[in-house]
Amino acid sequence: MSRNIILVDPLPRTLDLIMEPSVRARLEALGEVIVSEDRQMPAEEVERYLPDTVLIFGQTDMPRERLDRAPRLKAIINVESNFLPNVDYQACVERGIWVITPASAFASPVAEASLAMALDLARGITAADREFRHGTERYGLEGNSETFRFAGAPVGIIGFGDLGRELRELIRPFRNTVRVFDPWLPKEIVERLDCLPSTLDELLRESQVVFVFASVTSENEGFLGKKEFALMKPGAAFLLMSRAAVVDFSAMLEAAASGHIRVATDVFPEEPVKADDPVRSTPGILLSAHRTGGTRDAFYALGSMAVADAELIMKGLPPRLCRRADPATASMMRSKPVSVS
Amino acid sequence: MSRNIILVDPLPRTLDLIMEPSVRARLEALGEVIVSEDRQMPAEEVERYLPDTVLIFGQTDMPRERLDRAPRLKAIINVESNFLPNVDYQACVERGIWVITPASAFASPVAEASLAMALDLARGITAADREFRHGTERYGLEGNSETFRFAGAPVGIIGFGDLGRELRELIRPFRNTVRVFDPWLPKEIVERLDCLPSTLDELLRESQVVFVFASVTSENEGFLGKKEFALMKPGAAFLLMSRAAVVDFSAMLEAAASGHIRVATDVFPEEPVKADDPVRSTPGILLSAHRTGGTRDAFYALGSMAVADAELIMKGLPPRLCRRADPATASMMRSKPVSVS
Amino acid sequence: MSRNIILVDPLPRTLDLIMEPSVRARLEALGEVIVSEDRQMPAEEVERYLPDTVLIFGQTDMPRERLDRAPRLKAIINVESNFLPNVDYQACVERGIWVITPASAFASPVAEASLAMALDLARGITAADREFRHGTERYGLEGNSETFRFAGAPVGIIGFGDLGRELRELIRPFRNTVRVFDPWLPKEIVERLDCLPSTLDELLRESQVVFVFASVTSENEGFLGKKEFALMKPGAAFLLMSRAAVVDFSAMLEAAASGHIRVATDVFPEEPVKADDPVRSTPGILLSAHRTGGTRDAFYALGSMAVADAELIMKGLPPRLCRRADPATASMMRSKPVSVS
Amino acid sequence: MSRNIILVDPLPRTLDLIMEPSVRARLEALGEVIVSEDRQMPAEEVERYLPDTVLIFGQTDMPRERLDRAPRLKAIINVESNFLPNVDYQACVERGIWVITPASAFASPVAEASLAMALDLARGITAADREFRHGTERYGLEGNSETFRFAGAPVGIIGFGDLGRELRELIRPFRNTVRVFDPWLPKEIVERLDCLPSTLDELLRESQVVFVFASVTSENEGFLGKKEFALMKPGAAFLLMSRAAVVDFSAMLEAAASGHIRVATDVFPEEPVKADDPVRSTPGILLSAHRTGGTRDAFYALGSMAVADAELIMKGLPPRLCRRADPATASMMRSKPVSVS
Repeated sequence: MSRNIILVDPLPRTLDLIMEPSVRARLEALGEVIVSEDRQMPAEEVERYLPDTVLIFGQTDMPRERLDRAPRLKAIINVESNFLPNVDYQACVERGIWVITPASAFASPVAEASLAMALDLARGITAADREFRHGTERYGLEGNSETFRFAGAPVGIIGFGDLGRELRELIRPFRNTVRVFDPWLPKEIVERLDCLPSTLDELLRESQVVFVFASVTSENEGFLGKKEFALMKPGAAFLLMSRAAVVDFSAMLEAAASGHIRVATDVFPEEPVKADDPVRSTPGILLSAHRTGGTRDAFYALGSMAVADAELIMKGLPPRLCRRADPATASMMRSKPVSVS
Repeated sequence: MSRNIILVDPLPRTLDLIMEPSVRARLEALGEVIVSEDRQMPAEEVERYLPDTVLIFGQTDMPRERLDRAPRLKAIINVESNFLPNVDYQACVERGIWVITPASAFASPVAEASLAMALDLARGITAADREFRHGTERYGLEGNSETFRFAGAPVGIIGFGDLGRELRELIRPFRNTVRVFDPWLPKEIVERLDCLPSTLDELLRESQVVFVFASVTSENEGFLGKKEFALMKPGAAFLLMSRAAVVDFSAMLEAAASGHIRVATDVFPEEPVKADDPVRSTPGILLSAHRTGGTRDAFYALGSMAVADAELIMKGLPPRLCRRADPATASMMRSKPVSVS
Repeated sequence: MSRNIILVDPLPRTLDLIMEPSVRARLEALGEVIVSEDRQMPAEEVERYLPDTVLIFGQTDMPRERLDRAPRLKAIINVESNFLPNVDYQACVERGIWVITPASAFASPVAEASLAMALDLARGITAADREFRHGTERYGLEGNSETFRFAGAPVGIIGFGDLGRELRELIRPFRNTVRVFDPWLPKEIVERLDCLPSTLDELLRESQVVFVFASVTSENEGFLGKKEFALMKPGAAFLLMSRAAVVDFSAMLEAAASGHIRVATDVFPEEPVKADDPVRSTPGILLSAHRTGGTRDAFYALGSMAVADAELIMKGLPPRLCRRADPATASMMRSKPVSVS
Repeated sequence: MSRNIILVDPLPRTLDLIMEPSVRARLEALGEVIVSEDRQMPAEEVERYLPDTVLIFGQTDMPRERLDRAPRLKAIINVESNFLPNVDYQACVERGIWVITPASAFASPVAEASLAMALDLARGITAADREFRHGTERYGLEGNSETFRFAGAPVGIIGFGDLGRELRELIRPFRNTVRVFDPWLPKEIVERLDCLPSTLDELLRESQVVFVFASVTSENEGFLGKKEFALMKPGAAFLLMSRAAVVDFSAMLEAAASGHIRVATDVFPEEPVKADDPVRSTPGILLSAHRTGGTRDAFYALGSMAVADAELIMKGLPPRLCRRADPATASMMRSKPVSVS
């Protein structure tokens, strides 16, 4: 009888990072687990196991030729959370091989931190603490001269995937009018979550708080630049939570430094940021070192979602928790792999 | 025909602070408005108008003798938001004079800022920005070594009046277990809002985030001290949002400085805080200069709630928006008047 | 030492009806309980105990003279749930005696049944069952020719007390626009619950479903009559859930019988309804025998709310669960005592 | 230049049934529309257009051979809402042809009617109306002797697809404990919506209200029978909302007639039901003629979701509103086509 091999090739993740012991035990119940954690799995190892491989967890290169040699393969589960161009997505579709990723594992921590940072910009939390430590604090109404209430403020969400929708749910008690710009979605999806489908310009002009959750594609690099920041209301807040490449970063810093808008960012064009990068001393900006998604619970969720869907797939059922790669959109994506876990 | 006099004696507020023009117009439609804003209304002025006074907006002294000389008085509307011992509450009750205050006007901004500060302590927002500016930022999972997720963390609320309940509604999407300690309330009130009635000790021991919204009474000064901080989980967050007098402030600073818990406070034993007060350099504490409630919208809400209830009272209906003074509890309150608007 | 007497005079209720054993035990812990259940407590019994009475549960006549003889009385807790003119409310206020009633105990079952009946009228549940039993059922789209979706339909609520607000919370997932007519309330109360303050005419004209929860007062008897029904949209639903006296009942039946609107009612001008009353065969009306509020859990809630507030009052704290009688509004009420429990 | 042909072959639907004029105009903007409404599109007509067909709306037979002759086909959009075995799903997958259906269009009206019927069984709405018309109504508490409160009652949901999840959202304000049995889903999906994953037996034993939304598959025909009804609590409510074939229908009728449980059903083993079918006079059952989903708005939603996804597909984007056929599960489905629209 043939063996059921599970290749685990999770770089830049490790198995311990993404799976608690109980989840790892569930993984091991599905087949014989072959792991390569310190480096990408060597070609000869991959080739040796392909004929009996039923599942791949990780970012192994899977061109059509390799797929041809893996007749029993049922699923490739990317655990880095971005689809890369090293898999032949069309060939997978033709063979009925699921290519999926538990990307939404990061939605909950990112949305939570996005709200934290938006409330910070609105109510001046970090700024007030800094003033207090400098002995220049202002009390009561005077201490609120540059603040606004997040409750009821018009909100704009650019990019309405898992992250944007999670944020939308978190802010319900604040009763904001929420505009959404997402050219990949029909208006029905937006309206069902009580948001207004919007053009980019209208969203920028009308919103007091703008959240950016858009992925980078071949078509939208730098689509938020000087012209777009100029459209925003004076004093409005701009939060960049997804990928630095969707904005013209220096235009964003300029808009913050000038006092026209207030900015928060979790991402940077180059990470780690250089020691002497001027962003470190730019006023009007709240800085976070690509850390809003990478919480311990999020990595564990990544693993448990991946295993839960693998369990379904091994029973002949479709996956329910992971996102599926669509050949057309996968090929449009331009995300660089994350270099820090 | 006699005149309907409305005395406005709002120190430390002013009429412009609490009423937009449209609200002031509604006030003026109710009677002839006599205002003293730069000082408390002089006795002779008060006495002159008492016989025709139907409403008082403010903190005028109203002992029984004055009430005897104000036979047409229907309501005293405190616009400072704390009941003071300068009114004979029992005498008002006997005469059917409403004594009310629109205190809940501050509930919404305070709850919003409380959540902002709780998310800050949980996710390390201010701390991460400070590290980034110092060039010591940490990326990804490493940058989360001292953070926790607010979502799902056990929450404790001490004092479940307007502020506590507003906060409870704001955090619903985070699905926390919420324990409440409030010795003035029956458990039904707590349970209806999906919280668990709790003893103080259990709340402190079980919660990852503790919010303090308790008023100061003759009975609870300093009830949160060294022993109580010791009960808290290492790394838990403690947010003091109501009155400094309910805690042993130096014990709180010590608990923060030692690293046992993380702390945020909006209030201080003496305000303004002295320039050389050690609180300014205490680590592990997030500082806010008594500014979470005093937003422009809150002051306007104070005025519009006061006028809306005055309109009802003038029609012979009970007030609906303001809180009523109960003689028994009013006499227990120990809040100092706010010295800064 | 003097005794603490608690008079229990609950007709038309009984103690067993409103208190589970555990609640009764809490009552007995508050004092010595004297009960009269089969008839109103005789005058001589009341008089004998007055000097030591601290609490009254029930509908005992309490004119000023009796209050004078009850110097230790702290509260009169009406357990019938409507304030009657047999208490000197003003004298109670002067003495600091709480007069309260746990009326909101009925809000939850009435709101639930109101929604049940509204969904029935909208989706034709009872009508479809009747047709099926007669062999005239229609399938699919044809079976929906006279139905409408409750979800999204404009709703009107007349009377926005406990019942109306409870209903408002129940229907949130249906995303209706909700208009409210309540002349006793400021618009702020209405707007906070995401409803639109409205005139009666606008509400009737714009709503697809109208709920009536208004109390009867000296001013509003029969205020919903022929003219008002004519304002409603053809096919709209009208649900009478509070008191029959607020409508012109025969005009309502006519509006239903003519097919202009569809009607549901839980109340009738005379109850029990006569055997030959034409309402029994009126088409277009859904009938309920004053039974939407009187569920077992509601009666128990009545008792437990009453006891919980009595516990607070005995500790010198204000009640939190019951509604307070305001002398002005209590005197406007015209509800007949309920004759059936 | 070649034409973009859109085949519309919607039996048992018609184009007017599912598309308002504005939606039809959007359809026509996507290509040249060829319609066959009075009969299935004749083979010769299909064959003639296949080479230029880009979209099929309807239930046209599409075996592999036809797919071979439709090289430009991008999507087959089933508008009957059940995947039938007349399409070669695997061949579509291999060619990257979307096979989708806007089945969730019916989720909202079915969930609404499910709640209506559950509230009816719980609170006795239809039964009370019938008694009133017969002159045997009972008032107040007596009229509630066989009712229970839906609020707080333990609920069980069998089958947690679009319908079950929509119902789950509708009942949130009632604060039920909700158990879910769905062998096709990982527990994470269930828990995210605040439900408890459950075995079938536990669900039946613990729930006061059981909703059945399960599809029929080759594996679950008649899986709810005598044994399962016996597990239910006396007086519990059972609502069959999806397909008659998942229950042993006569066992269900017996359980209702005996008084053990109360039942509501929207579906029947044969429809239309025969004139002399004993179900028509069975006591303890609420009858609905397969009409909970087929509302006008639902049919229009079917069309607008289909067109919105077609628009995305024509732009090279994945569909977002319709459900995708998975070859594995599509082949398990056993639903008969609906014979009445």
